[in-house]
Amino acid sequence: MNGAQSLVQTLINCEVDTCFANPGTSEMHFVAAMDSVTKMHPVLCLFEGVVTGAADGYGRIAGKPAATLLHCGPGLANGLANLHNARRGNTPIVNIVGDHATFHQQYDAPLASDVAGFARPVSSWICESKNSKTVAGDAARAVQAARSAPGGVATLILPADTAWNPADCASGALADIGPAMVSAETIEQVAKLISEGNATGKKTAMLLSGKALLGDGLEAAGRVQAKTGVRLFCDTFASVSELGAGRVPVERVPYFAEQIVAFLTGIDRIILVGAKPLVSFFAYPGKPSWCAPEGCEYTYLSLPHESGVQALQQLADALGAPAISPIRVPLTLPDLPGGALNPLTAAQIIANLTPENVIYADESATSSLPLLMNLGRARAHTHLALTGGSIGLGLPLAIGAAIAAPNRKVVCPHGDGGAAYTVQALWTMVRENLDITVVIYANRSYAILNIELQRVGAIGAGPKALSMLDLHHPEMNWAHIANGFGMEASRATTCEEFTAQYASAMKSKGPRLIEVLI
Amino acid sequence: MNGAQSLVQTLINCEVDTCFANPGTSEMHFVAAMDSVTKMHPVLCLFEGVVTGAADGYGRIAGKPAATLLHCGPGLANGLANLHNARRGNTPIVNIVGDHATFHQQYDAPLASDVAGFARPVSSWICESKNSKTVAGDAARAVQAARSAPGGVATLILPADTAWNPADCASGALADIGPAMVSAETIEQVAKLISEGNATGKKTAMLLSGKALLGDGLEAAGRVQAKTGVRLFCDTFASVSELGAGRVPVERVPYFAEQIVAFLTGIDRIILVGAKPLVSFFAYPGKPSWCAPEGCEYTYLSLPHESGVQALQQLADALGAPAISPIRVPLTLPDLPGGALNPLTAAQIIANLTPENVIYADESATSSLPLLMNLGRARAHTHLALTGGSIGLGLPLAIGAAIAAPNRKVVCPHGDGGAAYTVQALWTMVRENLDITVVIYANRSYAILNIELQRVGAIGAGPKALSMLDLHHPEMNWAHIANGFGMEASRATTCEEFTAQYASAMKSKGPRLIEVLI
Repeated sequence: MNGAQSLVQTLINCEVDTCFANPGTSEMHFVAAMDSVTKMHPVLCLFEGVVTGAADGYGRIAGKPAATLLHCGPGLANGLANLHNARRGNTPIVNIVGDHATFHQQYDAPLASDVAGFARPVSSWICESKNSKTVAGDAARAVQAARSAPGGVATLILPADTAWNPADCASGALADIGPAMVSAETIEQVAKLISEGNATGKKTAMLLSGKALLGDGLEAAGRVQAKTGVRLFCDTFASVSELGAGRVPVERVPYFAEQIVAFLTGIDRIILVGAKPLVSFFAYPGKPSWCAPEGCEYTYLSLPHESGVQALQQLADALGAPAISPIRVPLTLPDLPGGALNPLTAAQIIANLTPENVIYADESATSSLPLLMNLGRARAHTHLALTGGSIGLGLPLAIGAAIAAPNRKVVCPHGDGGAAYTVQALWTMVRENLDITVVIYANRSYAILNIELQRVGAIGAGPKALSMLDLHHPEMNWAHIANGFGMEASRATTCEEFTAQYASAMKSKGPRLIEVLI
Repeated sequence: MNGAQSLVQTLINCEVDTCFANPGTSEMHFVAAMDSVTKMHPVLCLFEGVVTGAADGYGRIAGKPAATLLHCGPGLANGLANLHNARRGNTPIVNIVGDHATFHQQYDAPLASDVAGFARPVSSWICESKNSKTVAGDAARAVQAARSAPGGVATLILPADTAWNPADCASGALADIGPAMVSAETIEQVAKLISEGNATGKKTAMLLSGKALLGDGLEAAGRVQAKTGVRLFCDTFASVSELGAGRVPVERVPYFAEQIVAFLTGIDRIILVGAKPLVSFFAYPGKPSWCAPEGCEYTYLSLPHESGVQALQQLADALGAPAISPIRVPLTLPDLPGGALNPLTAAQIIANLTPENVIYADESATSSLPLLMNLGRARAHTHLALTGGSIGLGLPLAIGAAIAAPNRKVVCPHGDGGAAYTVQALWTMVRENLDITVVIYANRSYAILNIELQRVGAIGAGPKALSMLDLHHPEMNWAHIANGFGMEASRATTCEEFTAQYASAMKSKGPRLIEVLI
């Protein structure tokens, strides 16, 4: 057994059985080990940003980490932006980066770089294995670190000789470092705040994050809502949320600072369940970054590393809430529109036709508002958002989600600007025959920047500036691009065309792209 | 005048007049300033890896820096791999990264990250502007740092409020920190070593790097060669080299360690002109990383930050060499082959048909050997290589070279695996109507890894491992992909087809892609 085999077997022992990979020479022993340790499922991606974004999508849906396999510092560098997104969403990822053999590093060969330096800004844990005998232990610790509440990117750097030199054995799994429990005192205090607030006519909201938005957590929040009338919020870019008909209703906080302030008008207290106080996504000249209305107070029920689920359940009990939340989202499907395609009509078609239990890997950007409004009342689904705001996540995220949940359809509504970042992801969708429907919103623009240019008060913007936000010249043809990567694709210019194409995609399985000209 | 305008005007004052950009909200004032400071030429790219690779190509050909414009930490992260390549080639780049306004950073908004941390492994200089009044001075220092011998990546981080707050004025250019001069003593010692070596039958070679491979430097090296018989070498991945008929002959060191050792057999001394000792690109089990044959000694004529050109000229004088090198590469064009396309026949066609003065932005990977052999004796040209070994550079590099030299044709021979990394570059080629002919070598494989898998002795590689190196399923159609990005494209399956398509591309101007099925 060599170090690479001890590594792969340890990952399997730790229930990490999926590896998104773009390997190079220094990772060849790891690659070879996938044939001797047969339970590992390797998924080849044509770019490292696809690797890391897919690992993010997998981690969000599977609730456990996938491994990546990246080639030296520059390979890691290509994956950093989507690791930034994963960091913001607390997604568990075992981020494996090969490097030059220990004895080779002194020679500063062309690919040598400061791998740990690249990894530091996105990693909650970093370890460089020193020799082949410690790789198994290091890998077990990496899995534990990735899974530690609230979840994070654990980067394991493997010099090539730690893979090819002999190892003794694989390691077993280490115990999970689960979330800390919230104290009875805190729960009692929050229960009292809610009750007193209700008694004095104050409005309370709970801002939910992480597992508080899923299953038992959401149910417990719904019990509190039913008993006390608190409103339930989630962040604009909540990592994973379970929404739609039959679910406990949760309102999504809007994107722009002034919208947030308006949204929060009348709220006197916001209780944070694993969430952070609401701030503006960007700063603007002369405008505040802090978004709470004057007099609105924040109270923590749980910090991100604490169990929001336990806290909500005990809070519901303390408040004497019903055992099951009686408040549910009613199914309200929009009619199928005709005529011109735009973000609203496209959203109505998607909401009308998408079956239950779909996962949305959503990077719909400026088209998101009508989409989210329509989906919120449509059939039950799981929603994945652009957690860290770094575009180019949606397509890879869809890959990871589809591999984590092979029996669920994934819909990927995506802005054209962001989709161009990681367009190679289409190839992996075809290679793995994933049940993903990609909808490209082709507005030929970095549309958000046309809005932001005004909002930041950038005076004097003329044709040169505006040309930097415009993607018309030349126009991309996403159907051709998708065909080039081996994917079935079509273009829709009217509601009727999109309805027919999307309905067909929903009825069949497999990868499919529809370009919506809006 | 605001900080952004003072920045753009300062860049113009420092002769930085081209900006490769993929901006976001925090860079909107910079973008707007391009309309008030009209001499700046902004070039929009659809991905930051294209931005930085284009800035690399520009810097290599223009001999002066372009600016980048990147969006926050994750935007920079997407550009890091090609900045790694630029760092290895000592390309001057002014790397401008926007960030959240200073007062916004405390709120840890989703896009906030450790920007300087991301930049550190690739930057020779980093500065975060503290306010709008210092931006002009910081920019002037950034240009000076980028241009300081031997050239490097100077990263300037601009919080958004340093762009939108008032500034007093732009800054003028700072004096160049030129290369240090090599001492007369060193030149005398090297002259003596060469003469004594010749007298005692020892073989000497000079390994040239940086400006020693161009113009006056190459000419001076040729004079030494003519007088003393030393062989002239350049690195496998020399950043810029001037090659072909009429030029002083330079031999390229091969890629693999054992090839290097064989290539150096019989060489007793290697004189380093701005170059580093030759080492293996990767490490292999049980094989040495150091590539010099036993007994072969290294001597430094100049370090990378010293003037190799001056040193070579004075060395030639000290040796009594002729005023102009009489040794020149004779023009030797291969015949046009017929029949099956493969790396050799494709190379023969390219060498036969390419006109003089072309720039090759070369990421031909495993197809490079026959290409370089044929090009070395073909018409005079400039060659740009994959300096840092991080694939996905070639297409962006071609953009930068074409913008730096608008009257020269650029040919970009590229492996399919690497081209998939930064495929969005095709769009910018069309948008800017650049005179670039892209040749995609479609071998449907990470071909180098099939070789390396054996070389590293990865035992037990089976179907799973081999599938990680194989790009057949699905097959990419590069003509469709290029069409999707608005580019004219064709596919060649025989020598006859490639000859017709390539000849047509050489006779016309503008962007064009040919997929060569090898």
